[in-house]
Parts: sequence; structure tokens; C-alpha cells
Amino acid sequence: MIRSVEQYLESLNDGRVFYFLGERVRDVTTHPLVRNVIRSASMDYFFPNDPKYHDLFVAKNEEGEAVNALFISPKSSEDLLKRREIFLTTWRTGGGTQLHCMGIDALEASKVVAERMDRRLGTQYAERVAAYRRYLQQNDLGITGAMTDVKGDRSLRPSKQEAHQDYYVRVVDRQKNGIIVRGAKMHISSTPGANEAIVMPCRAHGEEDQDYAVVFATPLNAEGIKLIASEPPMRESGEAGAWDYPVTTAYGHGTSECMIVFDDVFVPWERVFLCGEWKFSRDVTYAFATFHRLFGVCRMTTELEMLAGVAALVAEYNGVEKVSHIRDKLAWLAMYAEAVSVIGKTSCLYCEKQPDSDVVSPNTIYTNTAKYLFADNYHQAVKTAHDICGGIADTIPTYADWTNPETRPWMEKYLGGKAGIPTEHRLRAIRLLKDLTNPHFQIGSIHGEGSLAAQRMFVYAGADWGKYKAAAKRAAGISGWEKDPVFGSLPDYPKCISSKMKPVDESYSL
Amino acid sequence: MIRSVEQYLESLNDGRVFYFLGERVRDVTTHPLVRNVIRSASMDYFFPNDPKYHDLFVAKNEEGEAVNALFISPKSSEDLLKRREIFLTTWRTGGGTQLHCMGIDALEASKVVAERMDRRLGTQYAERVAAYRRYLQQNDLGITGAMTDVKGDRSLRPSKQEAHQDYYVRVVDRQKNGIIVRGAKMHISSTPGANEAIVMPCRAHGEEDQDYAVVFATPLNAEGIKLIASEPPMRESGEAGAWDYPVTTAYGHGTSECMIVFDDVFVPWERVFLCGEWKFSRDVTYAFATFHRLFGVCRMTTELEMLAGVAALVAEYNGVEKVSHIRDKLAWLAMYAEAVSVIGKTSCLYCEKQPDSDVVSPNTIYTNTAKYLFADNYHQAVKTAHDICGGIADTIPTYADWTNPETRPWMEKYLGGKAGIPTEHRLRAIRLLKDLTNPHFQIGSIHGEGSLAAQRMFVYAGADWGKYKAAAKRAAGISGWEKDPVFGSLPDYPKCISSKMKPVDESYSL
Amino acid sequence: MIRSVEQYLESLNDGRVFYFLGERVRDVTTHPLVRNVIRSASMDYFFPNDPKYHDLFVAKNEEGEAVNALFISPKSSEDLLKRREIFLTTWRTGGGTQLHCMGIDALEASKVVAERMDRRLGTQYAERVAAYRRYLQQNDLGITGAMTDVKGDRSLRPSKQEAHQDYYVRVVDRQKNGIIVRGAKMHISSTPGANEAIVMPCRAHGEEDQDYAVVFATPLNAEGIKLIASEPPMRESGEAGAWDYPVTTAYGHGTSECMIVFDDVFVPWERVFLCGEWKFSRDVTYAFATFHRLFGVCRMTTELEMLAGVAALVAEYNGVEKVSHIRDKLAWLAMYAEAVSVIGKTSCLYCEKQPDSDVVSPNTIYTNTAKYLFADNYHQAVKTAHDICGGIADTIPTYADWTNPETRPWMEKYLGGKAGIPTEHRLRAIRLLKDLTNPHFQIGSIHGEGSLAAQRMFVYAGADWGKYKAAAKRAAGISGWEKDPVFGSLPDYPKCISSKMKPVDESYSL
Amino acid sequence: MIRSVEQYLESLNDGRVFYFLGERVRDVTTHPLVRNVIRSASMDYFFPNDPKYHDLFVAKNEEGEAVNALFISPKSSEDLLKRREIFLTTWRTGGGTQLHCMGIDALEASKVVAERMDRRLGTQYAERVAAYRRYLQQNDLGITGAMTDVKGDRSLRPSKQEAHQDYYVRVVDRQKNGIIVRGAKMHISSTPGANEAIVMPCRAHGEEDQDYAVVFATPLNAEGIKLIASEPPMRESGEAGAWDYPVTTAYGHGTSECMIVFDDVFVPWERVFLCGEWKFSRDVTYAFATFHRLFGVCRMTTELEMLAGVAALVAEYNGVEKVSHIRDKLAWLAMYAEAVSVIGKTSCLYCEKQPDSDVVSPNTIYTNTAKYLFADNYHQAVKTAHDICGGIADTIPTYADWTNPETRPWMEKYLGGKAGIPTEHRLRAIRLLKDLTNPHFQIGSIHGEGSLAAQRMFVYAGADWGKYKAAAKRAAGISGWEKDPVFGSLPDYPKCISSKMKPVDESYSL
Repeated sequence: MIRSVEQYLESLNDGRVFYFLGERVRDVTTHPLVRNVIRSASMDYFFPNDPKYHDLFVAKNEEGEAVNALFISPKSSEDLLKRREIFLTTWRTGGGTQLHCMGIDALEASKVVAERMDRRLGTQYAERVAAYRRYLQQNDLGITGAMTDVKGDRSLRPSKQEAHQDYYVRVVDRQKNGIIVRGAKMHISSTPGANEAIVMPCRAHGEEDQDYAVVFATPLNAEGIKLIASEPPMRESGEAGAWDYPVTTAYGHGTSECMIVFDDVFVPWERVFLCGEWKFSRDVTYAFATFHRLFGVCRMTTELEMLAGVAALVAEYNGVEKVSHIRDKLAWLAMYAEAVSVIGKTSCLYCEKQPDSDVVSPNTIYTNTAKYLFADNYHQAVKTAHDICGGIADTIPTYADWTNPETRPWMEKYLGGKAGIPTEHRLRAIRLLKDLTNPHFQIGSIHGEGSLAAQRMFVYAGADWGKYKAAAKRAAGISGWEKDPVFGSLPDYPKCISSKMKPVDESYSL
Repeated sequence: MIRSVEQYLESLNDGRVFYFLGERVRDVTTHPLVRNVIRSASMDYFFPNDPKYHDLFVAKNEEGEAVNALFISPKSSEDLLKRREIFLTTWRTGGGTQLHCMGIDALEASKVVAERMDRRLGTQYAERVAAYRRYLQQNDLGITGAMTDVKGDRSLRPSKQEAHQDYYVRVVDRQKNGIIVRGAKMHISSTPGANEAIVMPCRAHGEEDQDYAVVFATPLNAEGIKLIASEPPMRESGEAGAWDYPVTTAYGHGTSECMIVFDDVFVPWERVFLCGEWKFSRDVTYAFATFHRLFGVCRMTTELEMLAGVAALVAEYNGVEKVSHIRDKLAWLAMYAEAVSVIGKTSCLYCEKQPDSDVVSPNTIYTNTAKYLFADNYHQAVKTAHDICGGIADTIPTYADWTNPETRPWMEKYLGGKAGIPTEHRLRAIRLLKDLTNPHFQIGSIHGEGSLAAQRMFVYAGADWGKYKAAAKRAAGISGWEKDPVFGSLPDYPKCISSKMKPVDESYSL
Repeated sequence: MIRSVEQYLESLNDGRVFYFLGERVRDVTTHPLVRNVIRSASMDYFFPNDPKYHDLFVAKNEEGEAVNALFISPKSSEDLLKRREIFLTTWRTGGGTQLHCMGIDALEASKVVAERMDRRLGTQYAERVAAYRRYLQQNDLGITGAMTDVKGDRSLRPSKQEAHQDYYVRVVDRQKNGIIVRGAKMHISSTPGANEAIVMPCRAHGEEDQDYAVVFATPLNAEGIKLIASEPPMRESGEAGAWDYPVTTAYGHGTSECMIVFDDVFVPWERVFLCGEWKFSRDVTYAFATFHRLFGVCRMTTELEMLAGVAALVAEYNGVEKVSHIRDKLAWLAMYAEAVSVIGKTSCLYCEKQPDSDVVSPNTIYTNTAKYLFADNYHQAVKTAHDICGGIADTIPTYADWTNPETRPWMEKYLGGKAGIPTEHRLRAIRLLKDLTNPHFQIGSIHGEGSLAAQRMFVYAGADWGKYKAAAKRAAGISGWEKDPVFGSLPDYPKCISSKMKPVDESYSL
Repeated sequence: MIRSVEQYLESLNDGRVFYFLGERVRDVTTHPLVRNVIRSASMDYFFPNDPKYHDLFVAKNEEGEAVNALFISPKSSEDLLKRREIFLTTWRTGGGTQLHCMGIDALEASKVVAERMDRRLGTQYAERVAAYRRYLQQNDLGITGAMTDVKGDRSLRPSKQEAHQDYYVRVVDRQKNGIIVRGAKMHISSTPGANEAIVMPCRAHGEEDQDYAVVFATPLNAEGIKLIASEPPMRESGEAGAWDYPVTTAYGHGTSECMIVFDDVFVPWERVFLCGEWKFSRDVTYAFATFHRLFGVCRMTTELEMLAGVAALVAEYNGVEKVSHIRDKLAWLAMYAEAVSVIGKTSCLYCEKQPDSDVVSPNTIYTNTAKYLFADNYHQAVKTAHDICGGIADTIPTYADWTNPETRPWMEKYLGGKAGIPTEHRLRAIRLLKDLTNPHFQIGSIHGEGSLAAQRMFVYAGADWGKYKAAAKRAAGISGWEKDPVFGSLPDYPKCISSKMKPVDESYSL
């Protein structure tokens, strides 16, 4: 089934317990600020219904039903490239896939690990995941994924926490029909607009943590679930919001990430995809991260396109676009954007088959390298943008000043830049630059889709050290490279030449 | 005269035309947000009246009157160290000297250049500056300095601007009793709380720009002056502001920087300190910057103390203070803070006498090096703080959520960290970290007290290239170092030793 | 024709005038140090003769003759990927393509610009280039390319140099049968082992520089050519060289880059490919750089494989491979290596057709981004390697100490690392690390295949600023993006959704 | 006693067992390369005998005898500033204090820890150290210090090494008259020219490592000591060395750092300053490092003066000194040099009294910050220098080419730069730049005088976290800052002002 935008919007009026800036929100679709993220999420229902985008966003499931393409597992590079195209299209538009971004990757992670457990432990999880997938497809539900726990003392394992035992989501009761879960997840994107969530662990577990080893799906209006939204980077709505914080407004950034409290929530067994198999917790975390990095890299690509563009615009509007150090900085921003983009794309081209499964995931080394490159340089890019723009990135007046007839003439006159550029254009560009360089993006660059440490860990674990060491050993004359598939088969240089050369002439004075 | 806090507050109700977030502010001392910066400014009247601080903040002028110590020109390293102590004391307190920070340096710059012009051109400016200084002393007025013009097209000189001629403040009429000025200044700190401003050019001028070569003082409620405030990093006031944005609230950051519009403002000749002497515009800009870097470095020192401290607190509260990479990051923050601090201090120890004057200014190389070090690394420090803190630096709920009885218990339970640390402490620390890493500080790090390019320019111009080149020439065996005071007088090595050594033994096989 | 290694070696005994470390070298194939680079170059004749590599290294020309595959113009992504495979194979082996690396790109640049001139100016250069290509193919000659002039005062154009007019290679006489050229080229790789060189300008020219606008080919033993080699990073040959400087010895690094003096050298017209068409000088420079970056990125890839590998080996041998900050550093080295590699690969996948030609060149943005990423980080990578390895990277004794029976037992005993690792392995690994981090590589990282500034210039010139600005304009609400092929066709968000949403509920207190 | 240069030189012909590049060196003063470091060391005997420098380099000991000033313990800031002046003078000259640099700090560390042990354990070490000091003073001996062990597997403690027990120097026998020591020290500067060495542990010890807890002094020609020199950055001597590697030749860099093998060496009890008191090993390491950082920072200061100077010279000679990005880079080099210098100087101004002692040491935070700043940026500075200089920093011909009459004219003509600058000057400057950027300096920047990790550890351990945390707590409204000496005593802002302000006007629409 493909729902209409209206059907989707209606579905959110479901009694969910949602708090924002100290108030209970009665209807997420009508709250002046929260509606921004809902509006963006609605695009996930606009695109499939738009004939122009139908082929990209709609696919047939095994039963032949037309469903959201994101609900179909990727089986090839082409499938991943199509996902990439979906992500780029929506993020460039300003709305869409933000809603499903976590959920679809949680779904694939659940599937892959369920199949692995079934094969290795003889469990029966895979069919539950498959049934849940059909349920999502048939009802075209918005789904998010919830991974990061609130964690308490980061130096202690889940079961060793001192203040209480609930810093990581856990099973507190196993009943005939299902389980009772308690705890809280943090930074969960898309929560206000999602119908459902798949909940997963965020770390490896030991045997003593087995109650924390749990994966399940739940509607977000289930009894006992409370959603507490984070603080958005701004407080303005409507026209003021769109002028002063255009990107934050378009995407509803900052209203999206919720803390989800599970106050003894019941989950029926058919929605439980892992329960107690603590050795597989790590697999879920890794699998989710592996899938999810691709989305992250696409999102980043579109942000860097905007950032490079707005830096170039502001330079032009300020009359400095021909200054050599400005060009150098712009060139760097372009290289940064293209490097992240193309390494991300490559992760689809050289995809990896998941073990025990027919699903493919983006290349781990490339997604993590692209994500790290992004995150490791974003604060530097912000600095570059701030440097190009000047202090007005901080001190620019607001939409309220612009629309105040007493101040607008002075702003029109004095905040102009290069002759011929409307002052409004310059102000809008600077507002965009200010918006894109706020800490929401900076912190998101590091911690969204996994920390710098996580990327290093993935790359350290996945890099071809055998090949690298073989390269070094061969060059250094250390045995041990002879069986390397790349370096072991190369000609035996310099021996293969030395015999053909004349003897050395020792008469030179070196 | 030393005014009381109450007298100062009363003086601001002077009819000034002040706009903030789209509204005319009737009284800057009662506006929910603007009052923050006024409250901070008031400390400039608290300290001198507090017996404990009297000796530091009050000095005798030439007439023997007790006046604000900042109104007395520095004549020695001790005087500069005392200023540094004043700046550190107030900024560590959270209020004070922000008000006078620009004005006192503008006053010294005016004095120094007036004396220089008088000596070289035979003008009579110095006495006007001295009289104005006495006026400030006798009335204990809050004074700011206004330098940065709105600039229009940055590639064009003031007189060559195409859209209009007012992108830089200029004299539009010379009358019998004074001049008429027009234009606008941008990013002017302390404007809401200042009684007076000294207005200066922000660049060197050519002859065709001579109308733009003007320095003058004016009360901020003069007819034709309109103050348009910038957007603060937040919109919350009172308790909510103090909890969610503690530093921004304490200092009133972001409400302080105004655009000052001069809509044909009359300035009497006795308040004009330069008018048409375009060859000296550059001197004013340089002199102001030279004095003002010291303040900047002190401000930065206190910000870095807070940043290092809050990063350490959050690490402790999260239970990760013993992790080696966290310690490495904290050590880096401490080194960064101490390097900026001590180089700043050194700039007082090795102060420089201003030519044609008895005034001393902080060492140019050291203030600029300290400022550059600060600005060049601040975004990196922010990244480090974000990395240590985790995503909650972005997604933390607000004071409104904390005080909502429906959500507070969940926050109490789930947002705790290390056992024994009150959740409130952890949340307050994270709010401080979030506040300190907002773009106001980032942009201020680069553009406040002069851009990165300005520091490089100062250092390039002032560095002892003769000494460096002599070092290189002597080492490389290139003539030209023999007259250098340092390298020219050293022993003639290796000659002075070679003659005493035995001959080389050439029998080794090298 | 495909020559044998022996035929190639014999061909170098051609009377060339070659100086190295102060001596005339009588035979480049027998000089203890110079022979290293000849040995490496010989691999270009080994591979085509080895059945295993025949298909990769040999191709048919238009006449159906089997020739070196590098002498055939690339016409597709597949052709470029094949070139990449050739470059990677030889550089991983330790020999080959270094010889042809510059020449084949000079050949393609000559062809592309000759065709362009012929089409636009009616000249007849293309056939000369084609004939020269056939000559190279039929005689299987080793060819290099010579671009960088010695330049004199970098602030002056070629014709405005003050000391003399020969700082850039120029035509000093046009004769009936050919031209006379004078000047000198610098840093020319592969000179000792090349039979021929194509000489090109290294910059754009104005009309007054038209004598400097010249492209030609010449044998390197032509009368009037003098080759002066640069200083290698070491002075040891034979076993000592191979142990102490394994990579430098394998590739003959540092003996390869020559200054080529043209002391009034005659070039027949059939070897002149541009002469006076100063408007096309820039095209030659750009075309060469465009082709040549691919080689550079492949070379870098193999160097980074070795560097990542040797850092990992040394960490392992020192017993620190499990320390978390060491793993972080190794992961960074791997990401760095993979990013350069994969962006380089992508430059083949998304190749660009040269205007007026059937030849394709690697994607400009990607090769330059990869090269910049490499060069911008190499010194950092060196620092990382030095940090991991410890001071012994500097203070390690030599092969001579290792083979001295008086010192070897002490080295065996005391320079061991982790138990079980032979001391010799540890020493060899450290020697490799020391070798790979010498300034030859560092300087080469920046200036080899074009400076950092050159990459920024290429990317600034070639980046899709239209797309970036459209991204920013669309996001900021500034008109001008509507016709952009990517951003202009996206749905009209948020309008497309807003009409479907319920009205805003204004009753919340924000 | 103050020895003459001749007496010093003669004293080195003492039968020491010294190996260099595979050969036993019969006389360190006549070996073509080793003599360079001896020549530099001789300056320690030149300066005290030169009337001009007598006051700086000579001091009276307690007995009233004139002795080398470095043999007198520093008791005040003035004493440290005098040391700094000595270090700067010699390093700018090109010779001197390299010889004593390690030894005098080892002597102070021995004294300080001996006094501490005597006071706390009742041992009698202090008098031994004092007697040894008098012996050094009376015989004016050159002394070095040996700290870094060869270490074997870095993950294992000294006593847990698997291959053998001698990876750290240890006591293998305690006899009536003294001890027998075995092991090897690495990277020991000044060894060829030193008469004596003080040997110390390089790490903290546990009880099981007590045999490794040993501090002693020994002549370097003692039976069983073998010195194996490291590889210098070059192999040229005499004029060629001085032209091609001017700094390396002047200081004898690279021939200086030896591995010292202790093959069961006897040390009499009166030269044993710690033996088995394992709890104090750490104190020795720390005390030595604390003293020695000052020397390091002075050495670095002079290297950065040369580096900034040579970069400026090369820019000038290439005609690019007015290009803005070149100026930016030069300004950065100057700031870098001045920051390291002035923070180093400050470490003397704010010195620290050693506990249980009358000796003062340089400020730990400042020396470590200065050293870290140096080391953390040196590779970047090298990159900057390479970028400014161009590829010729790698490919420049040698002295041998310059003095070959066949090649010199071409070098004269073609390697010139800006008109008016002799080609020789340009070449000498580039050679200096090449020399200063070789890995000896790069690796030395990180590992000489302690690794980056060591500086972070020192600063983490010594930083005033109480002050920083108080700053953060006060700002964030978290209790716990009230007793901090700085932040606890500040006015109670904002309370002290709020009561004086009018009530808030709530009528604005925020």
C-alpha cells in the first residue's frame, strides 16, 4: 500500500505522549515548530504518489504489491545506488527519508541478524521480521529506529550501573504473550513523525547483560511510551523561521530527536526479534551501523553542497569572490564536498554481501571513510565559512527587524553588498550560512550516524591489514608477503632484472 | 567621579532609539533579554564602589580626582598588568569591562594619533581628546568604540562604492560648530549600555577617501542615531535563560552587538579628533587594534578556562575522565588555555612605547600571536568539546522540560551520569558546554578583536625578520648577518675551534 | 615493437651527457646509484615480455602491431582503468612506468592540443604528433616529459626576466629544417633512463612570451643537452642501500629527477608540436596535468599502502598494536590510503572527453581532489608514523653496523622488540619507515604532479558552482536556482505539503 | 676549574669503544664526520674562556672556585633565565651546551631525588651527588645523561620481558665496592664528546622491577661500555658537508645520538645515587624531564628562528615575498617561533621550587606547553617550508656539482632567482631549508626531550583543574566553586546587581 500525505498526517493523531519545550503537544501536525518535521516527513508520502518519482520510490514486494521502495531489501549495487538516489533527492528537496532513515536500516539489521541466529542457534526470528516487514509494507507505516541508550556512567556495563539498572533498555519481565521493557533511548531522529520504531542495543553485551540484549518493534503510541523532544536550534516558526533558519525550518531539525522513555512497555512476542541472545547484540549494532552510514553520507553530501554554495554566494555578494585566498577556501570546500560524495557513491559500487543472507550492505571501509572525512572536517569547514562571511554571520538582525518598517530601510541601505545584488538576497544567504553552521550540525557531524571513534573502529577492524603489511614487508625485505594475493604474485623484482645488467662500476667517488 | 550602579542604570533612560528583534525597546534596563547585558555592564560601577576592589578599579587622574582606572592611560608594564587584572577579574565574575572594553582603547588610540598629528601637522587635536577624557572621568560615563563599517562591496574603496556613498561613515557637511556624519557601523559591542561612543575608521584611506577619514565622539542618544541590535544566540530570559544559556545570560552576549546608524548626526568640533587627515586613518585603526588585542586575549583566557573546566566536568560526570584519549583531549584544552593566557600576560611584560607619546601599548607580536592562537584553534576546541560530551550537547532538553513535573522525573532518572553526581549538575554542565560552543563564540573567536588575516598582517609587519634572516644567513654561510645585533656578535664558529683540532683522519670508508 | 630488457639497457649507452654528484657518468647502467633507477625503468620492458602480464601491458596499434599499451590513447573508462592497473602493478612491484609516466601524458597532451590547434587555426600539428607516436611504438622507446622551467624570479613573466631571457625554455632561432631551443627544465623524472623527451611549457603565455610557447620532442643524447641529476636521499648502493633505504633503492628515487639544460639544441620541424601559438600554451599545461594526475594518484596509493603497512608492522613489533591511540592512528592511515585510492579510481569511472578529440582523460575534480587529499595530509601522516615508531626512526644504526661482527650481537640483543619477532625484521621495518618518511617523499607529495595551489586552482575552475549555488539559493529562498538541472526539477517543497496540513495551533507558549 | 678547548679535546682520546657506520672510531676528534659534534661540544670550553662570555658561562661554586656555570644548581628565576641565555647563545652560535644539555639536568634530578630519599628514607645519597658535582666542577668534565632504555616489548614491564631481562638497564650484581650493571640506553645525545654520563631510569617501577631502579654515574671509557652511533642525515664532510648540510654539520647532528651498551659495567658505590628504591624511579624521570624541557624549548627556539628566516629568504630570492599567501605562511612561522620562545621564557619567570630542596625548576605547565606546541606543529612547519620553497628543496644539486667546472656554469645561470641575488646565496638558502626539514629534526621535534604523549601527561597531571572546574561550575550554577581561591572570592554576580534593577517589562513579544 502507498498512503497519501493526508492519510499519513491523520495517522499521527494517535494519542502519543509527546513533550516539547515543557509542554505536552496535543497534535504534532499543528504545533508551530513540531509541524516542520512532520511536513518534511510527509514528503515520504508525496514522492511515491508523484508520477515523476513513482519509479524511484515505489517497488513491488514479493506478493506483487506496490510498496515504498525503502521497504525492500537491497540485493545489489544497483539497489544501493537507487537508495542513494532516493536519499539525495529527498535531502536536496528539503523533505523526506528523514522519517524512514533509521527505521529501514534497523529493519535490514534485524533481518540479517535474525537469519544469522536462526541458522546458528535454531531460533525462529527471521519469519517474525519478515511478517513485520509485510505489515509495514501493507500499511505503509513511518518507521524509525532507536539505538542509543542514555548510558549513565559510560565506564560501567549495563548491568553494573550503580544508580539504577535502567540506563540501558532491558527486559524486566517475560510473559506468555510478550515482554515488558524498561529504559530510555536518546537522540532518536524522526520520532515525532514515525508510527513505529524498531528498538536495538547500542553495544556488545556479556552474559551478565543478557536482559539488555533485546530487539523489538513497537508503535510509538503504545502505553508507557513517553517522547521528550530535544531543544531546536531556534524558536521561530512560520515565515520568521523560514527566513531566519531556512534549513532548520525545512527539515524541522532539532525538533526531531527525542528521548523515548519506555515505562514498562508491553511488546508481543511476534514483535520481538532478539531476546537474550547476548552474543548477537554486537552484530545488530554493527549491522545497523553498516547500513546506516550510507544514509548519513548522502545527507552530508547535500549539506556540503549547500555549504559550499552558500560560501560561494556570500563571497560573491561581498565582492570578494576573486580574492585568491577566498578561492582557495572555496576550492577546499568543493573538494571536501566531492570527496565525501564520491566515496559514499563508491560504497554502493563495491557493496558487501552480508554473511548468511542475500542482502548487500554498503562497503564498510568506504562509508566509514566518507563519514569520518565529513565529521573530522566539519568544524574546519564551519570555521572556513565563518572566516569568509565575516562577523555578520553572528550579528545579523532578524526577520522581525526586516519586516519592521522602522528598521527595514536602514537594513536595505546598509546591509547591501556588491552593487546589483538585492540586500534581501545577501541577508538570506547569510542567514542560511548562519543556520548551517550552528552546533546542531556540528554536533550532528560528529555524533550523528556514529562517532569519530566508531568510524575508526570500523576501519581498523575492516581494513586490509594483510595487504598493507604485505606491501611493507615486500618493500622492506621481510618474509611473510609471499602468499598475499596482490603482493605475492608480482614479479620478483629486482632479481628479475639484476641478472640482465652489467656489473657495477665501482670507480666513482661517492 | 565614580557613579553608583543606580546612577548608571538611570542614565540609560535617555531616549535612545534602540531596536531589538523587531521592536523598539522603551527601556534597555527592563527588557527581558537586553537587561542581561545592562546587568553585566553595571558591574563596571559595582567594582569601583566595592572596597575590596577599589584599589584595582579606581585611580586618581591628574587633577587628583578618583576616577575609573580604565580612564587613565597606561604608562608602564605595571599599568598594563593592572588592566589585565581588571579584565580577568570582571570576565571571571561574569560582568564588567564589556562596557568599556572598546571605548577605553578607542580613547587611547585617539590620544596617540592626535598627539602624532599635532606634532607632525601642527593640528590641535590632543587637547580635545584630553578634554573629552576629563569629561568622561568627571561624569564616569560608559563608553564604547565603533570601528567596523558595514562596507558594502569589499573589493571597492569607500569612495568608489557603486550603490551609494555611505557604506563607510563619512563627513557629509562641515559646519561652523561641527560636522554632520552619515553611515553605519556594525558589530559594535556594549552599545545598549554605553552612554557615549568614539567612532573611528576601520581601514587605511587614500586621498579620494578623505571624507571618510574622521574620528569623533558622540552620546548614543544624539539625534539621528539609531541602534539596531543583533540576534542573540537564544530567546529565553530569566531563570530559563540562566539555566539553558548560562554564559550568554550572564554577559548578555548577542544583545550587545549593534548596528549603529548615523542618519546625518551633528558632532561639535570639540568632539572631532580627526577630520580629513586621511594619511592617519591607518594609524588610528592600528593603534586601536594594538590596544584592544589585550582585552581580547583576557576575555579569551576566561572563556578557555570555562571551556577546559566544563569539558573536564562533563568527562567526570559521564564517567570517562580516566580514559586516555579523554585525558589527552583535556590536556590539549589546558595547554591551549594556558598558552593564550601566558602569551597575553607577556604582552604586558614586554610592552611597547607608542611613538610621539608617553603611552605604552601591549607587545604587538605577543597580543597578535595569542589572539591568533586562540582564533585559529577555537573551532577545533569546540569539536573537542563536542566529541567529549556526546550528542546530548545538541539534544538536551530545556529548563522548561526540567520544571515540567510530567517530564522531570524521567529526566532525573535517565539523564543521570556517574553515580553520586546529581542529574541537575550534569545537565547544567552540558548546558554550559552547549552555550560556550555556540556560533556566537565561534564567530567571535575569529572576528572579535580582529580577523585571522589581521593578526597575520600585524605579525608579518612587526616580526623581527632581520633577526630571523640573520639566523638563516649565518647558518647557511650567506653574508649579510654580520651587523645583526644578536647574530652578528656571536663567536666566529667553527673557525674559533677548527684551528685547535687535529687534522682529519681520511682513512675511514664512508 | 616490444624491446627486450637487454635491448633497452643497451640503448642507454648513447653518449648522453649526464652528471651526478659532481661526476660525469660514463654509463648510467653501471653507476652504483644511478643503475637503481635504470633497473626500475627496465621493468617497463620486462612486463610486456612476461606472458603473465602481456595482455595488460601490450596492445595493438592501428597498424596491428603489438606495442606498449601506454602508447595507445585512452578512449574509455576501461582504458583508463587499465592504465590504473598498469600503474598500480608496477609501483607495487617496485619498478616500471616510472620511466614512461611523464612521457605518455605529454604525448596525449600534445595530441589533444595539436588536434585543437589544427581545427581552430588550420595548423598541421596533429599528423606530426601521430607520426612521432608511431616512431615511439615502432622503436619501443622510453619517453619522459619535461614541463617545469627553472623560472628565475617567480614574479616575472618569461620575457620580463631581468638576469637573462632563458629562465624558461624558448626558441632562439627558426631555421629551415627546424628550431634552436635554449633554457633548462627542472625536476624531470625518469631522465636517466629515457631515450626521448617531450618538452612543454609550464604556464600560460601572453603575446610577448610567444617565443616561449613551444612543444617539441627530442632524443636525450641530442647535441647540446646536458643532464644534471639531483641529490638522492642517500649515498649507499648495493646491499647496504637495499637494507638501509629499501624503497629509494628499489625505485632509484632521487637519482631520477634531473635538470635538463638545452644549450642551443636543434629540433627538426617534424618534432615540433607547437611553436609560437601562445594562446595554446595553457592548454598544453592543463591537458598534461589532467592526464598526469592519474599516474600521481596511483603512485601515491602504493606509497600509502606501504606507509600504513609499515606503521602497523612497527606497532606490532614494538608490542603496542593493541593500544587504543595506536589503533586510532593506524585506522586514520588506512582511511587516508583508501580515500586517495578510491577517489583516484573514480576518476577513471567518470572520465571526461577532451574537446575536439576522441581521447578521454581522468575526471579533473576527482584526480585533483585525490591528489590534494594526499598532499595536504602527507606531512601529517609522516608525523603519525614518526609518533608511532619512536625516536629510533632517526637513531637506528645502519647496514654497516649490522654486518660488523663487533656491533651486530649488541644490535641483535638490544634492538629486538616483541618476543618472537626477529630483530632483523624489526630493523628492516624501521628502515623502511625511515626511508618512506624522508623529505624526498614529503616534498614530492606536495610538488610532484602539481602543487597544492595547482589542485585548488583546477578544482575551483572545474567545480560545479552552479549546482552548489543552486543548492544554497533554493535553501535560502533566493531566486536563481529554478533552471538548475538538479535543483530546479525537485518538488516545490514545502508548498506541496503545506496545503494538506491543518492550520497551526498558536496556543503554545514558545 | 675551567679547562681549555685543547685540554678538553685531549681528554677524549681515552680508549673509549665507539662505533660509527660500521667502523671502530680510533679518535673521535679526527673522524671526518664525528669531529663535527666534537667541534660543537668544544664550544662549552670556548665560551668560559672568552672574556666576553666569562660572566655568563662561569660561576663560583661554594668553595669559591670558578667553574662552569651549568654545574651550579638554579635557585631562582634569574638563574633559570641565565641558563636560558646560555642555551640560546650557544645554539645560535652553532656550538656548545649540546654537550652538557642532558648531563646537567640529570645532575639536578639526581640531587633533588637524593635529597628527597634521604629525608624520607634516611638514605645517604645526597652527599654522594654533591661529591660527584664537586668532582665535575674541579675537573670540568663534559657530562651527558642517559635515560631512554631500548625497551623491547613496549607492552611489558622491565622484569616481564620475555626475550631476555636486559631491555632496561639493571643491577645484575651488588658487590662490596659497587654494583655491576647491564643493559643498553638509546638515543643518548652528546655521547661521543662526553667524559661522563649519569644513567637514570626512564619509567616508573613496581616492586618486582626493583633491580631496574638504579641511578649512577660513570666515565664513558669504563670497561664494558660500548658506544654505537646512529646514522647521520648525511655522509658528507668538510666543505661539502658545510655547504650541503650546514646545520647538521655545524652541530654534528645525527652523529651525536648513541646506543650505550653496558656489558656488565662496574660502578663504585660513591657513584650510585639510587639503587633499589623503586618508588622513586618515577621521581627521577619526572625531575629530569622537568629540568630538561627548558633546554629543549631553547634549542627549538633557535631552530625556529632559522626556519622562519630561511623561509623568508627563499621567498625573497624566488621573488614571491609579496604574494599574500606567502606572507600569511611567513607570519604563521613567526608566530609559531615567538610563541614557543616566549612560553619557554615564561617558564623561567614563573619557576617552581622542588619539594624538599632549595632548587627551582622551570614551570612545568609552560615548558610542556611550549614543547608540545613546537612538536605538534613542526611537521606542519616543514610542510609550509616545502610549499614555499618548491620542488627544488628535493632536487637541488650538491656542492660536488657546484664545484665541478663542467656543471657550475649551468647552475650559476639556471638556478638563479630574483635578479641581483647571487645564485650561490639562493642555493645555500635552499640547502639550509632542505637540511632543517630533514627527518632528524622532524623526529627530534616529537621524541627529543619527551614525546607528545609525555607533554600531555605532564600537563594533565599539573594543570589547575580545580580552577578550571570552578570556572565552569560558577558559570553553570553548580555548587563546588565557592572555596576556589580565584573564583570563590569574586562578587556574587548577578545577585549583587539584580536587586538594584527595575522589574522586567514582560510586554515584549519574544
